[in-house]
Amino acid sequence: MIAVLKSGTTPAQRDHLVAWLRRMNLDVHISEGAEVTVLGLIGDTSRVDMELLGSLEIVQSVKRVSEPYKQVNRKFHPMDSVIDIGSAKIGGGHFAMIAGPCSVESEDQIIGVAMAVREAGAKILRGGAYKPRTSPYAFQGLGSQGLELLRAARKATGLPICTELMDLRHLDEFHDIDMIQIGARNMQNFDLLKEVGKTDKPILLKRGLSSTIQEWLMSAEYIMSEGNEKIILCERGIRTYETATRNTLDLSCVPILHELSHLPVVVDPSHATGKAKLVAPMAVAAAAAGADGIMIEVHNDPAHALCDGAQSLTPDKFADLASRVEIVREAIR
Amino acid sequence: MIAVLKSGTTPAQRDHLVAWLRRMNLDVHISEGAEVTVLGLIGDTSRVDMELLGSLEIVQSVKRVSEPYKQVNRKFHPMDSVIDIGSAKIGGGHFAMIAGPCSVESEDQIIGVAMAVREAGAKILRGGAYKPRTSPYAFQGLGSQGLELLRAARKATGLPICTELMDLRHLDEFHDIDMIQIGARNMQNFDLLKEVGKTDKPILLKRGLSSTIQEWLMSAEYIMSEGNEKIILCERGIRTYETATRNTLDLSCVPILHELSHLPVVVDPSHATGKAKLVAPMAVAAAAAGADGIMIEVHNDPAHALCDGAQSLTPDKFADLASRVEIVREAIR
Amino acid sequence: MIAVLKSGTTPAQRDHLVAWLRRMNLDVHISEGAEVTVLGLIGDTSRVDMELLGSLEIVQSVKRVSEPYKQVNRKFHPMDSVIDIGSAKIGGGHFAMIAGPCSVESEDQIIGVAMAVREAGAKILRGGAYKPRTSPYAFQGLGSQGLELLRAARKATGLPICTELMDLRHLDEFHDIDMIQIGARNMQNFDLLKEVGKTDKPILLKRGLSSTIQEWLMSAEYIMSEGNEKIILCERGIRTYETATRNTLDLSCVPILHELSHLPVVVDPSHATGKAKLVAPMAVAAAAAGADGIMIEVHNDPAHALCDGAQSLTPDKFADLASRVEIVREAIR
Amino acid sequence: MIAVLKSGTTPAQRDHLVAWLRRMNLDVHISEGAEVTVLGLIGDTSRVDMELLGSLEIVQSVKRVSEPYKQVNRKFHPMDSVIDIGSAKIGGGHFAMIAGPCSVESEDQIIGVAMAVREAGAKILRGGAYKPRTSPYAFQGLGSQGLELLRAARKATGLPICTELMDLRHLDEFHDIDMIQIGARNMQNFDLLKEVGKTDKPILLKRGLSSTIQEWLMSAEYIMSEGNEKIILCERGIRTYETATRNTLDLSCVPILHELSHLPVVVDPSHATGKAKLVAPMAVAAAAAGADGIMIEVHNDPAHALCDGAQSLTPDKFADLASRVEIVREAIR
Repeated sequence: MIAVLKSGTTPAQRDHLVAWLRRMNLDVHISEGAEVTVLGLIGDTSRVDMELLGSLEIVQSVKRVSEPYKQVNRKFHPMDSVIDIGSAKIGGGHFAMIAGPCSVESEDQIIGVAMAVREAGAKILRGGAYKPRTSPYAFQGLGSQGLELLRAARKATGLPICTELMDLRHLDEFHDIDMIQIGARNMQNFDLLKEVGKTDKPILLKRGLSSTIQEWLMSAEYIMSEGNEKIILCERGIRTYETATRNTLDLSCVPILHELSHLPVVVDPSHATGKAKLVAPMAVAAAAAGADGIMIEVHNDPAHALCDGAQSLTPDKFADLASRVEIVREAIR
Repeated sequence: MIAVLKSGTTPAQRDHLVAWLRRMNLDVHISEGAEVTVLGLIGDTSRVDMELLGSLEIVQSVKRVSEPYKQVNRKFHPMDSVIDIGSAKIGGGHFAMIAGPCSVESEDQIIGVAMAVREAGAKILRGGAYKPRTSPYAFQGLGSQGLELLRAARKATGLPICTELMDLRHLDEFHDIDMIQIGARNMQNFDLLKEVGKTDKPILLKRGLSSTIQEWLMSAEYIMSEGNEKIILCERGIRTYETATRNTLDLSCVPILHELSHLPVVVDPSHATGKAKLVAPMAVAAAAAGADGIMIEVHNDPAHALCDGAQSLTPDKFADLASRVEIVREAIR
Repeated sequence: MIAVLKSGTTPAQRDHLVAWLRRMNLDVHISEGAEVTVLGLIGDTSRVDMELLGSLEIVQSVKRVSEPYKQVNRKFHPMDSVIDIGSAKIGGGHFAMIAGPCSVESEDQIIGVAMAVREAGAKILRGGAYKPRTSPYAFQGLGSQGLELLRAARKATGLPICTELMDLRHLDEFHDIDMIQIGARNMQNFDLLKEVGKTDKPILLKRGLSSTIQEWLMSAEYIMSEGNEKIILCERGIRTYETATRNTLDLSCVPILHELSHLPVVVDPSHATGKAKLVAPMAVAAAAAGADGIMIEVHNDPAHALCDGAQSLTPDKFADLASRVEIVREAIR
Repeated sequence: MIAVLKSGTTPAQRDHLVAWLRRMNLDVHISEGAEVTVLGLIGDTSRVDMELLGSLEIVQSVKRVSEPYKQVNRKFHPMDSVIDIGSAKIGGGHFAMIAGPCSVESEDQIIGVAMAVREAGAKILRGGAYKPRTSPYAFQGLGSQGLELLRAARKATGLPICTELMDLRHLDEFHDIDMIQIGARNMQNFDLLKEVGKTDKPILLKRGLSSTIQEWLMSAEYIMSEGNEKIILCERGIRTYETATRNTLDLSCVPILHELSHLPVVVDPSHATGKAKLVAPMAVAAAAAGADGIMIEVHNDPAHALCDGAQSLTPDKFADLASRVEIVREAIR
């Protein structure tokens, strides 16, 4: 970490600051320039409050030279992490399509979708039981009953299941869920991160709506610092001024994350775009960008044929998308 | 709610959709135009999933005509809400300065600051016991002990106390806290919102880092829908591309919220700007914009005189700020 | 266009508004609801100032039902536009790699790069002569001399040339440039758009740094409304809060633009990301998303070997990228 | 400027870079750390391309220690600039209300508004003659005739006049305009900036829709580097994800600009918010934040009484706002 001191700083002020930094067990290397003095801080700077330091009267600016995350950092773990989710693997060359309905609605629905997406090549079944909803008046999901239906679909198809945990009081209920999703709105729910960090479950950590890549990795670090190394990052679009899509899918994060971290990266084009027509081209683009997996909303409910145009795809369209993703993956191999 | 159908929609498709809408207990008023058909939906549309409807193949776009929030809506509650927080009142012409340190560190510190800010006119003491930190390696606050110290400061000064609740398992411990803060990162932690909605405590609901005003009001609606009407909204800056400040303080939200809702609005310029020099002008501007309260970080620790430049103010600077805020409030009365 | 009137609107106010709208040659269809009145405006609404209408005291909100752009709209021109740029074609299934250095520096440099990129499959040579620079003290490009050098490179290789026009007083000088680039910062320089609209040159219109897709199409409409139909849209990243890349590449815009407009879409991953390592994965992803062309910065200056890591690629890396793009294009055909 | 080199950098690579930097007439101070090497660059770094340097293979990051702007920098010009605009002054304690209609429409209109706003205390008349419009089909302003009408209003009231210049070919026509406005969309139209920099006219430089404060100051530096020191900065809202206002008014920029620069800062709440109801509270807040002037849209057209609700205020409402601004300015003096 480097701290640049303002030009008017007195030697006494500088020494006062240096002493304070040394009390934090840091070596301080002082470099006096014509205009400014630069302090190089050496040691474990992950505990230094960068904002506090930067806001001191005599400090012009502060810059990290090393990343604030450790266990998720590729520097300290050069090999790709490979995560086992039941019979599926993600990362290190292993790729998985994750598919299923937005909400679990009935046994027929979830088993029907599960069979269809398995047929089309999906490796993991997703489905919402507890649903984060902006409005308290909207349907909040089937809850426990939804988990039961997911288990039934797993039994019928053999697919491992993935569903979102919102409330840490439900953790026991998730004991046999194959992959626990932490949603975008909970990416900085630190107590929830710590609790899932104490389990041995694979965690799908969605990016917060306005989270930087560094903040996202810090949230993964929260989970890993409690002992759980089975983390999969999931890009689902970020909030920008553009209104043509629900969110802006940031595919650049895929190669960036692969450089910074050893964790696998999955892309969810359904939630990012909010429009069925955009799901297929963005899924193919995600595969081309190097994603380790793609998560797609699929529905299979003839009674709601009206919903064909939603961000959900029919099984047929999903099968077509999955084969195109496979072709692109072959092409860039 | 208005739904515009695409030009190629067949009568059968239209009727199918209308039937589906009517099954949701909505009246549907059909208006056929040359190019498009417009459906007017009348009734309780707060349960309609606007995104789902908008994503249907035959629907071009959907628009809400009435707001999705009810209990926080000024339309249904024209008078300003006035919230009692111990001896203080906020809203409906009642104004309060809320002040205190970022983190509670020791009995001397918190009592010292509490006495100083009471002297300068603060009505409520704030201080962090459980701290949301981006890094798992950063100091996470004194926790229970911090709550104890806040109680001691309340006893010493008579000031009601406000502190952040992050984990709903701690709710019992907060039984005698005068105002519970829900932080920006938890603004859409819906289970936490529901739990504090079941208490009778005043809730200070901070705006999420990239939350729209409507989403913020929907989160307040979550609390109120469980029975707790004592909600104070707190603007603390939103995330933008500008890097000169930590966040961009959105003061326009003050008059907007006063038009849309009956709830009081507090502004926190310390966290929004992250720079002590900006706190005073932004606090005065917030008062001029009509804020019902202002929340300021104040420290009082001679051992850390270095930190003078942080976003925290010294008691002296806070006293000066408080008197300028009062002058502006008098001026615009 | 639909205007929703507020609930308290009197019949006199409504009639006053309707009369005003009818004076603009619009048919007005009135639909009275229980809570609100909805006006449907039929006719040429492209001249209606939507913001003015929406800000009237009695108007709750306004919504366009049809797009404000006409000539660039696919509805009125269902076939893909194919643009000829010298020997190259873009659009309607024709794909082109556009490559070259950020700035034209010398004859050796530009001819060297031109020969290398032609060899690797580029169809068009790009290079900056007049450079938009944030600082008045930075090198502003070789200007006229740079154009001369581009002509020399065209003569040596046969590649058509593309370079940026910033000042409409230079238009004469650009008479034999094969494709004129309008930069991101000039996307809403409306007088410049009108002037290039009066030429018969292909125009590469870059997206503004914080431009919506609709604003971008409106800028293309400015050019086309003056008679020039040879427009190519170029996505180059948008401004967001994320700092890991210079800008956020919005690949979703490719399928969206293909739905809304008949104009071809090119993607520039070099400027969007600002990092050489990200250029190749994002170029391949752009091809997968359906882009009609890709624009890449390539340098070829052994004296500046240090710059290898910049957003520019060496000819070798470009050749590798070009072949991977080709493979993906084959795969998704 | 500080450059941090990556840990794997060889001495040869480092020396190569240092030699390159020294050829740019910079002193380079090398500080070898355990993990990284830090280069301190001393001298005129305003010509160094920070992005190029930062993108070199061996460079981890680059940080400016001094600002890239000089002539607009308060460090080199500690006293506030005071700008004379006809009979009005702005800056250094001089405050001016600038008011007038969005577009000049007729002699009656502009003289009527001019008399009304002078009566209410405005010091400068504004009005659009050449209008930047998103759509080529929208009314583009009266042009030359609009300038004539503004001159007539000046003659009738004595108020200096301010209007927007979009096309540098119109510069001659603006020879007697008292203050030339450069609009938000042209903030980085560098050729236009250079041309107005060669005049001796006061320039009102609006902030670009997604411009950082530093980019804005660099655009002012463009003007000043050509010799014109009469620059007034005008905040008019920035583009964010929030849709409740047209743009987000960033009042924090007022104290920040006052710290970084000697130039006066004016705030335009009319364009920022787009809603008449928000203009008055945001104008008062701007005054409280320390603005040197406020720019307000005022209309005076009984035939368009319908428009009362637009972002424009009636003269009566403007007079009320002006007196409240004055009271707040007195209060914070």
